[in-house]
Amino acid sequence: LARARKGPPVITLLTDFGLEDTYVGVMKGVILGICPQAVIVDLCHQVTPQDVFEAAYLLCSSHEYFPPGTIHVAVVDPGVGSSRRIICAEAGGHRFLAPDNGLLSLTLKEVKLDTMVEVSNKDLFLDSVSSTFHGRDIFAPVAAHLAMGADVAKLGKPAVRIRKVDFPKPVRSAGGRLKGRIIHVDRFGNLVTNLTHLVLHGVLARPGKLTIRVGRTGIEGISKSYADADEGGPLALFGSTGHLEISVNQGSAAEKLKVQKGATIEVVPQ
Amino acid sequence: LARARKGPPVITLLTDFGLEDTYVGVMKGVILGICPQAVIVDLCHQVTPQDVFEAAYLLCSSHEYFPPGTIHVAVVDPGVGSSRRIICAEAGGHRFLAPDNGLLSLTLKEVKLDTMVEVSNKDLFLDSVSSTFHGRDIFAPVAAHLAMGADVAKLGKPAVRIRKVDFPKPVRSAGGRLKGRIIHVDRFGNLVTNLTHLVLHGVLARPGKLTIRVGRTGIEGISKSYADADEGGPLALFGSTGHLEISVNQGSAAEKLKVQKGATIEVVPQ
Amino acid sequence: LARARKGPPVITLLTDFGLEDTYVGVMKGVILGICPQAVIVDLCHQVTPQDVFEAAYLLCSSHEYFPPGTIHVAVVDPGVGSSRRIICAEAGGHRFLAPDNGLLSLTLKEVKLDTMVEVSNKDLFLDSVSSTFHGRDIFAPVAAHLAMGADVAKLGKPAVRIRKVDFPKPVRSAGGRLKGRIIHVDRFGNLVTNLTHLVLHGVLARPGKLTIRVGRTGIEGISKSYADADEGGPLALFGSTGHLEISVNQGSAAEKLKVQKGATIEVVPQ
Repeated sequence: LARARKGPPVITLLTDFGLEDTYVGVMKGVILGICPQAVIVDLCHQVTPQDVFEAAYLLCSSHEYFPPGTIHVAVVDPGVGSSRRIICAEAGGHRFLAPDNGLLSLTLKEVKLDTMVEVSNKDLFLDSVSSTFHGRDIFAPVAAHLAMGADVAKLGKPAVRIRKVDFPKPVRSAGGRLKGRIIHVDRFGNLVTNLTHLVLHGVLARPGKLTIRVGRTGIEGISKSYADADEGGPLALFGSTGHLEISVNQGSAAEKLKVQKGATIEVVPQ
Repeated sequence: LARARKGPPVITLLTDFGLEDTYVGVMKGVILGICPQAVIVDLCHQVTPQDVFEAAYLLCSSHEYFPPGTIHVAVVDPGVGSSRRIICAEAGGHRFLAPDNGLLSLTLKEVKLDTMVEVSNKDLFLDSVSSTFHGRDIFAPVAAHLAMGADVAKLGKPAVRIRKVDFPKPVRSAGGRLKGRIIHVDRFGNLVTNLTHLVLHGVLARPGKLTIRVGRTGIEGISKSYADADEGGPLALFGSTGHLEISVNQGSAAEKLKVQKGATIEVVPQ
Repeated sequence: LARARKGPPVITLLTDFGLEDTYVGVMKGVILGICPQAVIVDLCHQVTPQDVFEAAYLLCSSHEYFPPGTIHVAVVDPGVGSSRRIICAEAGGHRFLAPDNGLLSLTLKEVKLDTMVEVSNKDLFLDSVSSTFHGRDIFAPVAAHLAMGADVAKLGKPAVRIRKVDFPKPVRSAGGRLKGRIIHVDRFGNLVTNLTHLVLHGVLARPGKLTIRVGRTGIEGISKSYADADEGGPLALFGSTGHLEISVNQGSAAEKLKVQKGATIEVVPQ
């Protein structure tokens, strides 16, 4: 940790800007003009346009793997140019900068909050602020000034509440059944659910098998690794974010099981 | 500015190499072998293959956001291996390196040119130069040598003229009407036109409303931000590059209005 | 070379993780937490999911362009979480880290091997190792420790043999004919074959012309550069990796000739 703190400042970028344009590159240009020693890491730029929930999930499942002091900039911002606020939070040893649209809500539920402000200090913005690209004109320069040592408290007045995304809650029903949702589908076609270790604790503690139903498929039990299923066979396991995932060994569960984001999943004890 | 100049050298890369291969990664390897402290920024690698105009537009709308001294390397190069020249220009406090096919022409119209040469100094190339990948064999090592302090004038003999891309000019007609073109469509489906603030100055100075016609859609007036339209509704505004853009609030104008790059747009005062 | 060795450590990443998720970003976070000064280069993340051969080819054709001491991390790992081994090799002045599934086999055929071990030293892993994301939990931290000076020999016990991918061998037949295969198709639709300069040496040394047959197309002779063909016309040339490639000048050979990876190609002397 001490070693990491001695290194150059790390800034992560999470956006829906894609890589077909120069939006991300331009943000980096602005950052490096203010903080030449910043190490900039692309967290993801392929968030579905305007999908705040997706960005919130990706940030929440990723931030803890970065060194102390990291500055996370997240710009999925359908309200850009409107009166929506910009929030900066110091929490869990990191700093977070995002529009106040729910993007930070899943992350801030999980870490200890130290300071939270509404960003309004125009001295830290570019001289000319457009109404369509605050990533370049506000988020990038503010992040760079934070990396240069600016204090979160200097960015604006304290913010007490922030907006939240609607995280689907698992539903328990008769006989210990548990209904969940597919909240994310990754590149491999793995189906990430809203069912965590904690949520499944009661079900897993029972003796006896359980069946997982998703789409038209029933899966028996929870596997340890992909190789527990035959090639092309479906399985359920706890993925790298601690959520239950439905996968196909060396294949795409989304394609093979014809299941998409938002679909329901049911865990049925026997 | 002084602060930026003290930082490590910044090199941007703009290519049509895509990210499915290792072409971009290999260019970075070559650069870091010559200039280990270089900070390399991906400006964009998803330029439509061989689309020199698109690259010229992207470079022109991005370069000014980088710190003084930045080296911009742009390789969209359908003529690679032929007798086409390679140009290096020092202009506006930056350096630019690109094939002489028009790629630099939009940028160099806008900044003060200091020096321009035809790159021919083979001492700065890789020992073995292929006929298909000058990005790796010429552009990357030359950029790295520039970053290490090589003088632009040492790269080759002075170049006087460069090739130009064909930038569509707005056309004025009776009654103050103005005809323009869609020159770029971004990831969000925003339609960027060739109509800038300057071009529209006369029209905007008049009293009375104006209508913007694109495809089969008529849009009344110019908005300040996306939120000025209803969700899913079309609008026109000045985008982050200072060009008039047609957008759909939280949607894709390209999809919704069924308009593509090259389409005409008409601004009609009433 | 001396200059490069004095620079910060370079780590390349080659995966099939794609850029739609935060998997790659998270690996970088882990690396920077251990080795803040690491320079991380994306070699490619768009490898076809689970396509070990493609990754092996991309690594083999790219590694030599990186500075001495570079650490190459390659994670295309269908067996993650199973008993498959992880290999670290010091060879040709670089270090390579990959699952033992053939990924390193093409590269290690071409460079001098110094040390090769089976990675098992858990002191260098993250505290908690998932069964689905060793890129984050094992490969990233081990690479970072190598960058901080850890000795390859300390990672685990010596490994003698590694698995190999099945590289298709060119077949010679009567009359000096040579049959090869398309082993890679790049973003431009260039068709890379398994026929190298060395393999074609005998054919090329003969007097007289030769015809190259691929799909339903016959191409006469080997060109020097794309511009040797008319715009839209097919040609054969030695590409930047030293392999014979089939291309279309300013177009896609894959589309125009309707040829895919795995197709055969025949070189016929006349």
